[in-house]
Amino acid sequence: MKFIIQRDQLIAGVQDVMKAISSRTVIPILTGLKIEAKQHGITLTGSDSDISIESYIPAEENEIVNVEQIEEGSIVLQAKYFPDIVRKLPEKTVEIESDDNLKVTIRSGKAEFNLNGQDAEEYPLLPKIQTEDSFEMPIDLLKSMIKQTVFAVSTMETRPILTGVNIKLEDNKLTFIATDSHRLASREVPISNANTEFRNIVVPGKSLNELNKILDDAEEQVEISVTNNQILFRTRHLNFLSRLLDGNYPETSRLIPDQSKTKIQVKTKELLNTIDRASLLAKEERNNVVKLATQGNNQIEITSNSPEIGNVEEEMSIQSIDGEDLKISFSSKYMIDALKAIEYDEVTIDFTGAMRPFIIRPLNDTSIQQLILPVRTY
Amino acid sequence: MKFIIQRDQLIAGVQDVMKAISSRTVIPILTGLKIEAKQHGITLTGSDSDISIESYIPAEENEIVNVEQIEEGSIVLQAKYFPDIVRKLPEKTVEIESDDNLKVTIRSGKAEFNLNGQDAEEYPLLPKIQTEDSFEMPIDLLKSMIKQTVFAVSTMETRPILTGVNIKLEDNKLTFIATDSHRLASREVPISNANTEFRNIVVPGKSLNELNKILDDAEEQVEISVTNNQILFRTRHLNFLSRLLDGNYPETSRLIPDQSKTKIQVKTKELLNTIDRASLLAKEERNNVVKLATQGNNQIEITSNSPEIGNVEEEMSIQSIDGEDLKISFSSKYMIDALKAIEYDEVTIDFTGAMRPFIIRPLNDTSIQQLILPVRTY
Repeated sequence: MKFIIQRDQLIAGVQDVMKAISSRTVIPILTGLKIEAKQHGITLTGSDSDISIESYIPAEENEIVNVEQIEEGSIVLQAKYFPDIVRKLPEKTVEIESDDNLKVTIRSGKAEFNLNGQDAEEYPLLPKIQTEDSFEMPIDLLKSMIKQTVFAVSTMETRPILTGVNIKLEDNKLTFIATDSHRLASREVPISNANTEFRNIVVPGKSLNELNKILDDAEEQVEISVTNNQILFRTRHLNFLSRLLDGNYPETSRLIPDQSKTKIQVKTKELLNTIDRASLLAKEERNNVVKLATQGNNQIEITSNSPEIGNVEEEMSIQSIDGEDLKISFSSKYMIDALKAIEYDEVTIDFTGAMRPFIIRPLNDTSIQQLILPVRTY
Repeated sequence: MKFIIQRDQLIAGVQDVMKAISSRTVIPILTGLKIEAKQHGITLTGSDSDISIESYIPAEENEIVNVEQIEEGSIVLQAKYFPDIVRKLPEKTVEIESDDNLKVTIRSGKAEFNLNGQDAEEYPLLPKIQTEDSFEMPIDLLKSMIKQTVFAVSTMETRPILTGVNIKLEDNKLTFIATDSHRLASREVPISNANTEFRNIVVPGKSLNELNKILDDAEEQVEISVTNNQILFRTRHLNFLSRLLDGNYPETSRLIPDQSKTKIQVKTKELLNTIDRASLLAKEERNNVVKLATQGNNQIEITSNSPEIGNVEEEMSIQSIDGEDLKISFSSKYMIDALKAIEYDEVTIDFTGAMRPFIIRPLNDTSIQQLILPVRTY
């Protein structure tokens, strides 16, 4: 194998596949990064067997030559050293060459690295996914759906299925749902071009977080394909493959209250800042509790009390209050997460009493729903 | 105590004194931040008993009012909560008030925090330093002297005196020296206005690192005073007090070789980058070793070898080589630290054989000296 490649292109590709490589894998060769050279371009692969990422650098694209003097072949290199080496090479191009004894030479300017490679034949083959049953969507929309839901997955392994995001595609609607059983986040978007349907697909939260990091807004569309145990996200330069979680995702639709006893409308950022301030004195407690009480004249009061340290109270003028008076306590962390996820200036919050879940939505929009269970205070 | 203060001024002052406050102090009240209000201004104090920092916010300065409605008094507040509270308050001004029961109220806009304070009488008094025996120097020069030496202090407590920087003021010359016994860094500057002399002053490296962080380039001069066991750095808004290390600092002048068998002249940044690349394959080893060998035609070769992983070699054209041929091995970390500390484009390096310390200086300048002991390789 031999080729000469633009260093910037190589750095970007290596950075992407590194997101899937862990030094603590049970399969030793997966601590390496696979490089495969074909006449049409270079493919880099990284995998921790849960997530696999392939980054493709075409030899030529838009009349710009990225890779030259290609002699086909493949090799696996230690992922611990390769990224730093590439990043610190002196020139704009890099020559990479491997011989029959798996010795790899990396040259740039007068610098020459000689590394011990591993046989690419020993690298596991990634599962092939049928991409006929697929659908496309804009990348920025997918990223937004991930950001609005993934924070609500459970971090506890007691119910592993809740550590993932439930993805449904039914009736030309794509829905992401995440819950840790104390709160629930959901987002729904219309999809017009789908020739497939599914409902019990659960993607690990960790996979979606990594995907969100490496998806590049500059590329426009992502193609999504699903099989029994894998999901593939494919763009022009990237294949992102994740395993799915086994098990049945709980039916969550009945959790969403269909009535409301108190409804408030409020500016998102103002409420966020006020809750954030109220939570300051209870930093240690995991989900420190704040209280919200409605007052006359479209005012609410947010308070919090930590006996040892002190208390905080703040009145807030809001857009409107309809319905019964209300006093309710909830986790400030859940409220802050939910308000941050809603990318709208104003939200409505529907309460059905101090002991029932309440639900936050953008004003005049039900495609994003953030549900939070209140906390009992005595 | 009561006053209304500009929030930005308060944030900046709190940030400075927080650098001295540790949550792991043996004196409980030192986990707090002391606030003292006088008619002329507000003084904030933080201390971990090794370092003490006072930040002063004048009530009025350059015809701008920083603090209003001052009722004199003082209080100690939990440093764990106060900085975040101040930073997240909603308005540009903050009112702080304490009552006879040590209850403190912080108001800004509609937000109100009630905190439990502690009696300022219980806060230790900072030692008073006679400031007559003092000298002044530009802040940027002091910062530069710290940066060029402090990295070379020892991090091991086996010889505590070496964890500090030796500061000497003699014959109108100020000298900073640091060594961990494997390398030595020194910097000398002329001082014209000193009415004091000292030589066995050793300031903890940690103190100088913190001082370097909070000294503000915008203020021009710093006044330095020394007693037996304390050193005070004073600017218009800041008092920075550090204890000194006990013991005698070793005499280091005889370590500096006075002859040279091989002298090279080289571009600092190029050598730095080459050494950095050569060190990449030996990340784990603490001070991984690289080799330098002179070649003909003003060339040197930098190499490194990690049997398990591979090797790296790079030739480099340099400005000049005079004297004997040389092969020498040294810690790449020490070399990188030294080259980074020298703020000049070109350096000369004087070697006196493969087993003797060598010395790096800016071209035509002996006020900065970086000495490194080579490593024996077999």
